[in-house]
Amino acid sequence: MVNTGLEGVVAAATSLSHVDGERGELVIAGYPLGELAERAEFEQTMWLLWHGDLPSDAELAAFRERLTAARAIEPAAVGLLRECARRDVDPMDALRIGAGTIGLVSRASNDDPIAIAARFPTIVAAYWRLCRREEPIAPRADLGHAANLLYMLRGDVPDPESVRGLETYLNTVVDHGLNASTFTARVITSTGADLLSAVVGALGALKGPLHGGAPGPALDMVFEIGDASRAEAFLRRKIEAGEKLMGFGHRVYKVRDPRADVLARAAERLYTRAGDMSLYTLARSVEATALRLLDEYKPGRRLRTNVEFYTALLLHGLRLDTPLFTPTFAVSRAIGWIAHAFEQRRANRIVRPQSEYVGPRDRRWPRAAADASSTVDY
Amino acid sequence: MVNTGLEGVVAAATSLSHVDGERGELVIAGYPLGELAERAEFEQTMWLLWHGDLPSDAELAAFRERLTAARAIEPAAVGLLRECARRDVDPMDALRIGAGTIGLVSRASNDDPIAIAARFPTIVAAYWRLCRREEPIAPRADLGHAANLLYMLRGDVPDPESVRGLETYLNTVVDHGLNASTFTARVITSTGADLLSAVVGALGALKGPLHGGAPGPALDMVFEIGDASRAEAFLRRKIEAGEKLMGFGHRVYKVRDPRADVLARAAERLYTRAGDMSLYTLARSVEATALRLLDEYKPGRRLRTNVEFYTALLLHGLRLDTPLFTPTFAVSRAIGWIAHAFEQRRANRIVRPQSEYVGPRDRRWPRAAADASSTVDY
Repeated sequence: MVNTGLEGVVAAATSLSHVDGERGELVIAGYPLGELAERAEFEQTMWLLWHGDLPSDAELAAFRERLTAARAIEPAAVGLLRECARRDVDPMDALRIGAGTIGLVSRASNDDPIAIAARFPTIVAAYWRLCRREEPIAPRADLGHAANLLYMLRGDVPDPESVRGLETYLNTVVDHGLNASTFTARVITSTGADLLSAVVGALGALKGPLHGGAPGPALDMVFEIGDASRAEAFLRRKIEAGEKLMGFGHRVYKVRDPRADVLARAAERLYTRAGDMSLYTLARSVEATALRLLDEYKPGRRLRTNVEFYTALLLHGLRLDTPLFTPTFAVSRAIGWIAHAFEQRRANRIVRPQSEYVGPRDRRWPRAAADASSTVDY
Repeated sequence: MVNTGLEGVVAAATSLSHVDGERGELVIAGYPLGELAERAEFEQTMWLLWHGDLPSDAELAAFRERLTAARAIEPAAVGLLRECARRDVDPMDALRIGAGTIGLVSRASNDDPIAIAARFPTIVAAYWRLCRREEPIAPRADLGHAANLLYMLRGDVPDPESVRGLETYLNTVVDHGLNASTFTARVITSTGADLLSAVVGALGALKGPLHGGAPGPALDMVFEIGDASRAEAFLRRKIEAGEKLMGFGHRVYKVRDPRADVLARAAERLYTRAGDMSLYTLARSVEATALRLLDEYKPGRRLRTNVEFYTALLLHGLRLDTPLFTPTFAVSRAIGWIAHAFEQRRANRIVRPQSEYVGPRDRRWPRAAADASSTVDY
């Protein structure tokens, strides 16, 4: 039997995350998401995924230092991103291209998790600014991973509430079982390839609209609706036209995506602090209407709010534009990819599934074509 | 049950190639390998894999024209390869980095199979020359895909026998079921990502020494043995020390790898024409001794000569140095990756296997760490 989606196939034993789609639970390295997401500094989450336990204070301090020391990107990488911006390259492609150059630092950097993790935010922020015809901002060693990303994007030191908001987001999406990009990283790692090869491959998978590419449209829909009073008519039209509602439904979660709650709370705090709750309130109202209508039109399908919906709201509240959403997702998920690569190496077996051949057999090479090929001008 | 290697899992239905490991047979889009490998112009093989049938004369002529028109790489790509050469980047990494920039041409080029296929040889040859402190040679529109690659490497128009040798190699390794790099390309494609994302990811997998990274050492061993009279003692020592013999054994083939015969014949013709059979004869003798000793030491393991052994001999006969072997492999296999991406799209389902969680649960966030994180200097 051909199983293209590998549904139900258990391709790895993992200690990194546990997704219970029926119960709506997500465990990150032993911590229920709600326990970790709002409390962990992202550097703690990184260490936790790579080492299995939280770092001691001394370990954390040393880890922070190694990360900050590795943040700057090569002039050649900046030049390349400048060229990408000039040609209006998609930000995810620019991140893939930029990440590829981490190997320029030294051959060792191809397999150095710190070199990769530390530079992702720098590449994302530099490219974003270059696209807006602004010069990249150098990283600041006195800021944490999340705070420094906001600083390199905006040019000012962010307030603690924004940092906590971004950190909550990064913690929330850092790992999620064998999603397509994480699985890609494991397949590449299984050949003995280095971390950078795995991460660059995973970036390609994350770019796909069926995987990481959809948080923008979820927010676009809220903006398009504009006012809660228009939500029902708008959503009915969309559902009746057979369109998918972006931000609802997930292949694994059949109840509410546990990440949505965490991100909703973070967004609420952020918008509360900013003093303008209108977008948040509108989004909540659109969500409630969408859930009611999905139940009405598609009873039993159990389509619930997914991570994209509140990702969009939260990142927008952090003043990140929609093209930055998927690259910011990648800044976090790259940590999970690296952790999975480590895990794959500890119990490796090259990934080599079977295919079923359904094509013709025993074709004979045509005489005419054979003659034609001999006339090729070498 | 956890199945990390996905052994026995049928992850795709394909019309591209059929690998029968027990019978030692390989079918490429309906043609037994022996039927196709020595006869097809590589452009015919490309078309065959992408369209399912051989091209008509008119289709082939138009296809050649589109390919030759797309060969040149961007000045930004050359600059980047120059930087890679300056820093002694591994040729497979340089190919990955260089291939990544194909998207600089235009957003459409990210998903243009011709743009990708046509530039691979140019990137490989340009980087090779830059590593030797020579300027890249521009592609020549009057040469075919294989001939032009040799021309861009060597700087002179190759003789027809060399072209046929390289073409036989490219035809032979163009596709091989769901090997790890091909599977990587399919997983990435399953997210809706573009061809370039899939191909760049697959390059990462091909870099791994368990997959594409081993043809060099097989030849190194022959050189190290140096004389047929020393083969037996050398190989006995190696086997008794528990070392693997590079170029022997394959996960799928339990009889002789059908690609080995085709490549052996091509190598024989090439060395015959060159007028010096000594290396070929030595390699044949090393092979015979190795097979005899493997049967003696590991009866029933059925370790046979694999594709690497004769790849090395053939490519060496084409005056390609060992660091070029895997990138040349990639020039061919990229065609298979693209064909699999097309096939994946025609019956797509996002690849999303399960994992089994074996880590702790219900960890509580430590008070102390929570306090520590609040002292971080934002």
